[in-house]
Amino acid sequence: MAGKLLVAGSVAYDCIETPLASEDYILGGSASYAALAASYFSPAMMCGIVGNDFKKSDVERLKARSIDISNVVFHPSKPTFFWRGKYFENFNSRETLDVRLNAYEDYKPELNESARSAEYVLLGNISPTIQASVFGMLDSPKFTVADTMDLWINNEREALVDLVRRVDLLILNDSEAKLFTGENNIIRAGRALLKLGAKCALVKAGEYGSMLFHERGFFVAPAYPVDDLRDPTGAGDSFAGALAGRIAAIGDFGFESLKKAMLYASATASMTVESFSCYKLEENGMDEIERRKNYIEKISRAD
Amino acid sequence: MAGKLLVAGSVAYDCIETPLASEDYILGGSASYAALAASYFSPAMMCGIVGNDFKKSDVERLKARSIDISNVVFHPSKPTFFWRGKYFENFNSRETLDVRLNAYEDYKPELNESARSAEYVLLGNISPTIQASVFGMLDSPKFTVADTMDLWINNEREALVDLVRRVDLLILNDSEAKLFTGENNIIRAGRALLKLGAKCALVKAGEYGSMLFHERGFFVAPAYPVDDLRDPTGAGDSFAGALAGRIAAIGDFGFESLKKAMLYASATASMTVESFSCYKLEENGMDEIERRKNYIEKISRAD
Repeated sequence: MAGKLLVAGSVAYDCIETPLASEDYILGGSASYAALAASYFSPAMMCGIVGNDFKKSDVERLKARSIDISNVVFHPSKPTFFWRGKYFENFNSRETLDVRLNAYEDYKPELNESARSAEYVLLGNISPTIQASVFGMLDSPKFTVADTMDLWINNEREALVDLVRRVDLLILNDSEAKLFTGENNIIRAGRALLKLGAKCALVKAGEYGSMLFHERGFFVAPAYPVDDLRDPTGAGDSFAGALAGRIAAIGDFGFESLKKAMLYASATASMTVESFSCYKLEENGMDEIERRKNYIEKISRAD
Repeated sequence: MAGKLLVAGSVAYDCIETPLASEDYILGGSASYAALAASYFSPAMMCGIVGNDFKKSDVERLKARSIDISNVVFHPSKPTFFWRGKYFENFNSRETLDVRLNAYEDYKPELNESARSAEYVLLGNISPTIQASVFGMLDSPKFTVADTMDLWINNEREALVDLVRRVDLLILNDSEAKLFTGENNIIRAGRALLKLGAKCALVKAGEYGSMLFHERGFFVAPAYPVDDLRDPTGAGDSFAGALAGRIAAIGDFGFESLKKAMLYASATASMTVESFSCYKLEENGMDEIERRKNYIEKISRAD
């Protein structure tokens, strides 16, 4: 049965420079990207913290997508989490120029009644300690997803392994799956994640698509072909958000439903990377997601 | 209509060291791998040169697969093309330790009547000058495929571009497609190959599968999931051989037929890398190819 989706993670202001353009103080962070993406599939609640510099226009932007921000703390004296980054050489590498935790420094998540009772939960990319703290407050979630990255694999491995064993689906990219498991082959890495205790693992490989390792089988989804990359920031977050949103919307998280959700996730993420922030996604919305999802289905069929 | 397949390329003796094992003086080279792979789909003729050290057992091995070697020159005084290579770090990189052209040094391909009249032709991975020389001798081929690699893109670019414009399908891997076109995004690279004059381009991405850029559309095939990699040598050659063999066997090279052929090619290549040389392929044959092709089809279907 369809249910409420809770999205926890970071809310940030990003200053991003790409080989093509740059933009300052745009809404970013894993929870923002994920909640905006999820909102095209299911009503979403966001959990996180923002600072005293958080713009009214960004509150409006989230509300325009009917995102419930009653679990977002507004810090009275510190600014919003801040990230400044630069992409080089046709987006092949990126460098963090500045990162400031600000409001996140001593953030302890709090959930209201409504958030605690969420049946579908995305623990967006943030420290596994914060993810575990949110997880621990949930009443009886039906399906929980955790997204992660190399930073936490390197620095909070123990907390991450513990979390991986508790959630229903782990999402990470191919190099992170290899880093996490010590396997150099993507198939071995995916299977090693299951042995590590993940119930189900989704490994993303950027322009090459994504793979699902599930007890009921294996599935490969191509990426939507993007030839006009503008800003890769948030691709993974919006992938995870769309996936969780789709699952919450249909209220089924079996193998078949996860496969279809991956196509929607891939379609949604492809729109995120064609603009800064989620501008393109917000401009084109569900019609374009649906069109891209159908196209992905088409390009992966040999008959 | 189904027709004869001619496979041109190198025939080599390889000494290969992997992190798991090593083997010396095993049959290799693009024509050997490709003709053996093709032989499971269609009768194949091989064109190339071997030396005075070429083993009788290898002649028998090719004949056991009904490969016509009447266009293979036996050099009277020089040894067979020789390659010694070593794979490092879980196969992530490889180094050529020794390479000797030997019999290939001043090889000029010659084709008999039967080879000249081949309707389906695979110009396996070898210098584009040799590939063009074979191409120039053909009477009226229906469908020609050229496989290539970084060496020729770097060293014989002009000859390669000229060849690419004449054949029907170009096969290369993702990093080579990027190198050839100067594009850093795989989709842009594929499209740039068409602009360069290729009628159709097939870009392989190893464990992530392969992509077909065709005037009638775009197609993505997953790789067969291999978790027991033993020797990646010849993966691309056997992919190309199986693809060309399948096309020759069904006698149709439209977009739909190419898509299906990619699944067979991916299935066949996955067996090549699970052993040295083509041992696994020759051991398991068509039943296992068919099983893997069906599995690839299954893992790429969301419904």
